[in-house]
Amino acid sequence: MKIYDTEGFPNPLRVRIALAEKGATDKVVFVPVDVMGGEHRTTDFRAKNPDATVPVLELDDGTCIAQCNAITEYLDGVFDGPSLTGASPKERAVIAMMNIRAESGLMNAVGAYFHHATRGLGPDLETWQCPDWGNKQKEVAQSTMAYLNEVLAENEFLAGDRFTVADITAYAGLVFAEFAKVDIPGHLDHLLAWRARVAARPSITG
Amino acid sequence: MKIYDTEGFPNPLRVRIALAEKGATDKVVFVPVDVMGGEHRTTDFRAKNPDATVPVLELDDGTCIAQCNAITEYLDGVFDGPSLTGASPKERAVIAMMNIRAESGLMNAVGAYFHHATRGLGPDLETWQCPDWGNKQKEVAQSTMAYLNEVLAENEFLAGDRFTVADITAYAGLVFAEFAKVDIPGHLDHLLAWRARVAARPSITG
Repeated sequence: MKIYDTEGFPNPLRVRIALAEKGATDKVVFVPVDVMGGEHRTTDFRAKNPDATVPVLELDDGTCIAQCNAITEYLDGVFDGPSLTGASPKERAVIAMMNIRAESGLMNAVGAYFHHATRGLGPDLETWQCPDWGNKQKEVAQSTMAYLNEVLAENEFLAGDRFTVADITAYAGLVFAEFAKVDIPGHLDHLLAWRARVAARPSITG
Repeated sequence: MKIYDTEGFPNPLRVRIALAEKGATDKVVFVPVDVMGGEHRTTDFRAKNPDATVPVLELDDGTCIAQCNAITEYLDGVFDGPSLTGASPKERAVIAMMNIRAESGLMNAVGAYFHHATRGLGPDLETWQCPDWGNKQKEVAQSTMAYLNEVLAENEFLAGDRFTVADITAYAGLVFAEFAKVDIPGHLDHLLAWRARVAARPSITG
């Protein structure tokens, strides 16, 4: 299988961490996509993913899977190793809920700030910006950080006592936040300690 | 188990259809939430769901599951009947991808238009609006309709040849679009035919 992505970008990072957690990084061929050159918006790329986003997983039968959560669902199902998306219905539901909160409240909120209220990827790519929306989403990201801090006061990881896809999404969201200069309020001790624990995992240190 | 929701609202509709498809509507006690009166923003409700949204599924052990996709994941896992989220990793991934496209491109885009570019739920509840963002999301919703029409030119349902959660999300998105006066362009024949097929299902006609 192939993954079309752009190394160092926030959403590709999510799938790369998931693959490393499954011990499956070497089972995939990475194909670089020149997002800064607009390759993701070409007709050829949109045939693989009409969302015009990276990453995209292409299976050997030609099926293309876009969207990180869908890709992680596939990788978690086909590779051995600790489950990232859960086993029982209750566990799967709690992980899905926390993953959605991390995605919409942090990853996507930081993305909206970056693309709408800063220079983003530059004027050639940011063809429509809405600064008011972007600035509001920065507030959403910081209030989500405060919420995640509360969760981590009670639990070692976001969906309970083990590392899951919710932690991957939130960690990549904080990496993006740092890049976009959305600060973590300094008093969020539990979030900062969790970030340090996650950053030390072999899937991230390499 | 209990579901806290507001009958007739778009996201509650998604979970109610999922329950009916599983033949499990009578396994759940519905508890009405007075969203128009702001009950979803009270301290008591936020203790169940800090997102301050409906629906919320409360399990008998007190665990609260928010977010439609997480709730549907649980219901699909515990009740018999045709799978809404898929069985094989590939099937699960394709359904998840199409569900995300229906949610972000249609349901959430219509919601953003409704809450930001119209009167929405009224001035007491719409305390911050961003009309430019809302109007742009109306365009997103209509271009998603065109994309779904293309998919439905090739497939009977959004994720292939059977009804799944992706169809539920898109159908509820179109119900919301009609309410918010976001028209389906009249030439989208495949989408309109699919809507009629879905509307005739017993889970929707009751």
